Amino acid sequence: MTNREVAWALKCDLDRHGGQLSTQLAQQIRNSIAGGELIPGDRVPASRALARELNVARGTVTTAMDILIAEGLLEARAGSGTYISSDASFCPEQLQPVSETLIALPHAVPKPEIDQLGAVQIDFRPCRPSLESFPLAIWRRCLSSAGSAMPSADYGDPRGDERLRNTLVTYLRRARGLSFTADQIIITNGAVHAMHLLSSVYLDHDSKVVVENPGYRLARQTFRLAGADIIPCAVDSSGLVVDELPSNTENVRFVCVTPSHQFPTGSRLSLGRRRELISWAEERGILIIEDDYDGEFRYDVSPLAPLAAMSNGCVVYCGTFSKTLFPGLRIGFAVAPKRLIDTLAAYRSISEYAPNTILQSALAKFISEGHHERHIHKMRRIYAQKRKTLAESLRASTFAEQLQGLDSGLNALVKLKTGLTGTRLSAKAKHLDIVLPPVRHYALDDSVPDDAVVFGYAGLSEDQLVRGVEMLNTTSSAR
Amino acid sequence: MTNREVAWALKCDLDRHGGQLSTQLAQQIRNSIAGGELIPGDRVPASRALARELNVARGTVTTAMDILIAEGLLEARAGSGTYISSDASFCPEQLQPVSETLIALPHAVPKPEIDQLGAVQIDFRPCRPSLESFPLAIWRRCLSSAGSAMPSADYGDPRGDERLRNTLVTYLRRARGLSFTADQIIITNGAVHAMHLLSSVYLDHDSKVVVENPGYRLARQTFRLAGADIIPCAVDSSGLVVDELPSNTENVRFVCVTPSHQFPTGSRLSLGRRRELISWAEERGILIIEDDYDGEFRYDVSPLAPLAAMSNGCVVYCGTFSKTLFPGLRIGFAVAPKRLIDTLAAYRSISEYAPNTILQSALAKFISEGHHERHIHKMRRIYAQKRKTLAESLRASTFAEQLQGLDSGLNALVKLKTGLTGTRLSAKAKHLDIVLPPVRHYALDDSVPDDAVVFGYAGLSEDQLVRGVEMLNTTSSAR
Repeated sequence: MTNREVAWALKCDLDRHGGQLSTQLAQQIRNSIAGGELIPGDRVPASRALARELNVARGTVTTAMDILIAEGLLEARAGSGTYISSDASFCPEQLQPVSETLIALPHAVPKPEIDQLGAVQIDFRPCRPSLESFPLAIWRRCLSSAGSAMPSADYGDPRGDERLRNTLVTYLRRARGLSFTADQIIITNGAVHAMHLLSSVYLDHDSKVVVENPGYRLARQTFRLAGADIIPCAVDSSGLVVDELPSNTENVRFVCVTPSHQFPTGSRLSLGRRRELISWAEERGILIIEDDYDGEFRYDVSPLAPLAAMSNGCVVYCGTFSKTLFPGLRIGFAVAPKRLIDTLAAYRSISEYAPNTILQSALAKFISEGHHERHIHKMRRIYAQKRKTLAESLRASTFAEQLQGLDSGLNALVKLKTGLTGTRLSAKAKHLDIVLPPVRHYALDDSVPDDAVVFGYAGLSEDQLVRGVEMLNTTSSAR
Repeated sequence: MTNREVAWALKCDLDRHGGQLSTQLAQQIRNSIAGGELIPGDRVPASRALARELNVARGTVTTAMDILIAEGLLEARAGSGTYISSDASFCPEQLQPVSETLIALPHAVPKPEIDQLGAVQIDFRPCRPSLESFPLAIWRRCLSSAGSAMPSADYGDPRGDERLRNTLVTYLRRARGLSFTADQIIITNGAVHAMHLLSSVYLDHDSKVVVENPGYRLARQTFRLAGADIIPCAVDSSGLVVDELPSNTENVRFVCVTPSHQFPTGSRLSLGRRRELISWAEERGILIIEDDYDGEFRYDVSPLAPLAAMSNGCVVYCGTFSKTLFPGLRIGFAVAPKRLIDTLAAYRSISEYAPNTILQSALAKFISEGHHERHIHKMRRIYAQKRKTLAESLRASTFAEQLQGLDSGLNALVKLKTGLTGTRLSAKAKHLDIVLPPVRHYALDDSVPDDAVVFGYAGLSEDQLVRGVEMLNTTSSAR
């Protein structure tokens, strides 16, 4: 071998346990071309010599070279051997890396208020589902089935896959008592995306949006990003306090509520208030955004009809599969009058064409074969058990005065004994490597008393729940 | 059986060739509950009697019932039989369907300028890839592998999956000579989504955006939706005519170009103009959006470095997998300085959290194992052959004066012989059930001469290409 040829072998560092050697070899040669170490016109050493140098079978080398020839990175010249192809690479010295000297500055965008799960011992933050009983094999089969259809050359429907929409028509009628047609729903990239689309077609810089206080932080940011001012409205153990809705509703476009399970206090909007809220909104021409983020998980109580099934067209019902399946699926939906769906779909087309076809198709199969409802039913039992364990621990605790919000959903609100504050208990918890959000974390202002903390229990094991409460007992008594 | 019980059997219409009978039966009972035909408290007939009535095995019935019990729709009461569960349904008469009487009206959103593939004989519209050689089995394996990892309870990185970003760092260095790091890229829901994110963080109601004329219609709509005015700039056979960029650049935020293969004329931006465009933009603090929508498909010409590899930080490079793989994947990306990527990611978080995890993971595997480049290489040969066939047919045609844009991409521009106009030929083609867009379709104003049509050839068979040109010969000579 020539010196230059020996250099080839030196570039190649094969891992005998790292998968197919020919694939590894091809990848390393690709990298060397990309890095400019091998350049167009370089001759490839004879396969026999290279194989000897690398201590592999000659077939390994010829297979790797065949792959690279097929990719156009190498070219075989008749009678003279194999070379790095002339268009395999750019001349690196002409080019420069993407530079940070960006001239024009974008608008400031606030830091997203997202609770990313951290590497802590016990994380009580709400809204994370448990994946312990996720039917992985069934889901993979649905995915594989969706992937076995030859893809279309077209972009798909901006409202979402027709089969999935039809499946949701049936599912939501059965599960939530919602009656609508497939042209009254749009598949979104999660519930927040539905709110983003709504904000984009309704809100201006003089708009106002009424939200629950305390409430969902990211939704507030979404409305603000579209220019709106936020008007807080109090909640109590029957949900949004409808009597405290603003009397001056000029420029108020939305009222955004979580009637099934108020976030984060866990209360359910009573039937009477549901009726009052709808009258209030209908009289004023204000749209209600009904965020049903975890309404599937209901325990010992009877269901209440969604607002969308009680109103005369002023409710948009938003749902998501982030809690019933998993957040990374990024599929949610909005149910609304067709006219509004068509507008949302037009906006969606101009901003991203349409949702991806494959996950929609897999999900449609998963739901229509009954796996989704079976999974919810199974998780309901698991969550009910966790909730029972948490409730027992909390009743015996040194800090909990009262438990709320255990009827449904994935989290509970714990009112603290006199003398304790949520922010202080949360700060103490942090020293124990426990994340426990005070209710104030979700508040817009000081009108929300600092007397409670939020326990997201769904994603934790029963052992973690018991241990977490025990650790908090120690710290809360040692004031 | 009682009359009411016989009604059960009558509701059930099983298709012997329609898949598992027990699954069908369970679904039909679900539907009857949802439709209010079966109501909470209804007793389920004895399995033996129902099986006889339906003429199926008793096991079919008991399996269906077990499924429904597991789902909570039926409940077995000890010693008394099985009943429709009390929380299986809402009382339908209380509820009303989603109504069209929407009170608040959204802003008007224009009709998206999307060329949906129609049911015509021959569709020459550009930008549709051919799926004939798509490696479906390999893609399905990658998808299945992505689906076999237990999903996370977290939402993922708004910039996109780290492994995919790292894979693209390597791929784009090798394929396009772009050198950057994984924190200088964001995975988007396609290239238009990248433009939408950029528009959202840069544009206001007084902003202006320079675009190519003729050019990509949906991009113009995206910029307009964010409030911007559009300033057209001419193109010729060397791409954007840089000398004709506006002299008054007040409030101009972007210039959006397709340097690899001008859409739809197919010209490539010359090296000299690339340097001039970058100087122009850098001097004025204007961002260049480099839309490399089909730059992977290059035929007999040597590559030119992307603008992003030549500038000092004023270029955002946008790419997509819609052409190299398929549009329904909805994955693209933007490469930009880290500061800008962070802003785009924050905006993305607040509007939809993050992209879905599964397709990103499948794509990372597909690319890193070399399948993507192999597929491109294969398609390049297929498209080169189609392009040759089209060119031969056109050279012998009665209407084509000159062919342009065949160096790369998936479509060509055909300048017509004197006396013919693009709009007239297109109208005649329509009578033959052929869609053939005139170049004017992509123009912003009358400055673009009506002397050419666009042939998207990638998605058609060679036979269709030949036949299409032959049919056009007949009609264009019979003026």
